[in-house]
Amino acid sequence: MTRAAVMGAGSWGTAFAKVLNDAGTEVAMWARRPEVAEAITASNQNPDYLPGVDLTGIVADSDPAAVLAGADIVVLVVPSQTLRANLTDWRDAIPAGATVLSLAKGVETGTLLRMSEVIADAGGIGFDRIAVLSGPNLSHEVAARQPAAAVIACPDTARAEQAQQACATGYFRPYTNTDVVGCEIGGASKNVIAMACGIASGMGLGTNAVASLLTRGLAETIRLGVALGANPVTLAGLAGVGDLVATCTSPLSRNRSFGYVLGSGGSMAAAQEATHGQVAEGVKSCTSIRALSQRHGVEMPLTSVVHQICHEGLSVDDAVGLLLGRRVKPE
Amino acid sequence: MTRAAVMGAGSWGTAFAKVLNDAGTEVAMWARRPEVAEAITASNQNPDYLPGVDLTGIVADSDPAAVLAGADIVVLVVPSQTLRANLTDWRDAIPAGATVLSLAKGVETGTLLRMSEVIADAGGIGFDRIAVLSGPNLSHEVAARQPAAAVIACPDTARAEQAQQACATGYFRPYTNTDVVGCEIGGASKNVIAMACGIASGMGLGTNAVASLLTRGLAETIRLGVALGANPVTLAGLAGVGDLVATCTSPLSRNRSFGYVLGSGGSMAAAQEATHGQVAEGVKSCTSIRALSQRHGVEMPLTSVVHQICHEGLSVDDAVGLLLGRRVKPE
Repeated sequence: MTRAAVMGAGSWGTAFAKVLNDAGTEVAMWARRPEVAEAITASNQNPDYLPGVDLTGIVADSDPAAVLAGADIVVLVVPSQTLRANLTDWRDAIPAGATVLSLAKGVETGTLLRMSEVIADAGGIGFDRIAVLSGPNLSHEVAARQPAAAVIACPDTARAEQAQQACATGYFRPYTNTDVVGCEIGGASKNVIAMACGIASGMGLGTNAVASLLTRGLAETIRLGVALGANPVTLAGLAGVGDLVATCTSPLSRNRSFGYVLGSGGSMAAAQEATHGQVAEGVKSCTSIRALSQRHGVEMPLTSVVHQICHEGLSVDDAVGLLLGRRVKPE
Repeated sequence: MTRAAVMGAGSWGTAFAKVLNDAGTEVAMWARRPEVAEAITASNQNPDYLPGVDLTGIVADSDPAAVLAGADIVVLVVPSQTLRANLTDWRDAIPAGATVLSLAKGVETGTLLRMSEVIADAGGIGFDRIAVLSGPNLSHEVAARQPAAAVIACPDTARAEQAQQACATGYFRPYTNTDVVGCEIGGASKNVIAMACGIASGMGLGTNAVASLLTRGLAETIRLGVALGANPVTLAGLAGVGDLVATCTSPLSRNRSFGYVLGSGGSMAAAQEATHGQVAEGVKSCTSIRALSQRHGVEMPLTSVVHQICHEGLSVDDAVGLLLGRRVKPE
């Protein structure tokens, strides 16, 4: 029986732990706060992040070493900007042969490393052992066993298939792929594009405008991905278009909701409050993705505008002109 | 001053006539039914298709020759399966030098011709004079002057730019392109994919499933487009992803709404009633696109399932298995 250690007990970590458990994998979860771990083990629920969702069969602990012991697959599902610090703590406890499956979506501030690169660097894990999972996977729907599909990318196809088998259920369909860069860039960038779409919706713009923004966002994501060695086909797939569509159109998306508050005239603090105190990944990622694009000479106007709104005081009214008000020209 | 003849007074024809008028183009509209033409001219509204939308400055007539006389741009915006019959009537009245701009989206039943090919064939118009317009353009939003973008494709860039200038306004942004095939295949296929997404939503499936279906639909659209000579970049742009996202996610989309009724257990007749008696384009297009894909050896499983639901009595319950229930495999 495959044993998985799910490192992180937010809504996606919790939902994915349930998927693994439903797939017949033995699951232990790590929660940063002991009271969350105790609640999961004692009540079979995660009242803070997924209230009402049955987690029977899943144990949780706030001691990372206890959770990691004996794991065949280590699932990393912590905020992208804390991944390095977590891995530095955990690296000696990660079993030597385990596959490390990253569910974190972002680009590290400062270093501009993708999550798999942070894992290799801070965790001392070889790239052939690192897989990433991405796709249209709104946590609450997955936790409700609504049908969803995802991509698991790893240079080592056998490890991708190991992870695939560990989480394949009747409602959750993982497809394997070898394009780690494409999956990671798609996953990181969609949070920023979702913020832009949320801002537009919050300002009262309609479906046509949001669909145009999403399309522009996809175009700049593909440009960056290709510059970093990704296959554009990956970004036209579940880990690109699929994830982007789910995140940009659902009111359940945290990044979209965060942007929506900003677009409605709310402050960054108000947006954070509206998303239950959790900062949207896109708030940090817009800055690091923008820096990464500049390093590679790739134009990402949408990402740049989101950065300016979040960190340079650009008003959303002025932003709309930048996003939609360009002069007519060839596509 | 540019003069445009808008041939068709449905919701999109009417909304686009308003865009042209707002852009400073002189606009005459053709309506099949004299009472619709009279209402537009007399009351400056199209009560049947866009009630409440001000059409001041636009004249309408049910005599095609009167509308076509002196037009620099002839806009064709009739149902895809009636385009040939209409053009056969109109061909002698289309001014010799006019640009013909197609807003029709579909593939002709039987001949399997794209709309521009029908125009060339039945209208005796050279391909260099035929442009197509496509993009995320929900009629009601455009009519409300909500921001939208579109692509105008024509092998003759000067004509694409002429059409672009004729309809560019502060809220409507047309981009030029030369990939007529890509724009047409994107526009035709999205109606079928939107029906599939509507069916899924009607069955109660969530955003993750709809985003996955949309992604699969895009993949099969790109496969068909490339087989016909389209540039895949076009299909990743406004005329592909953009139009697909708008149509698949908005409750305003007729094709999505039609599918939604089917997915909820309604009959084809009930679906047609729910869309105000207008048959969704996708109902016909699924059959012709499927046949076109078979002729070119391209797999289009989603389109095939929509065809089976609409025309071969496949139940939506059985369809879900075909759409989502495939075994795990590489993407």
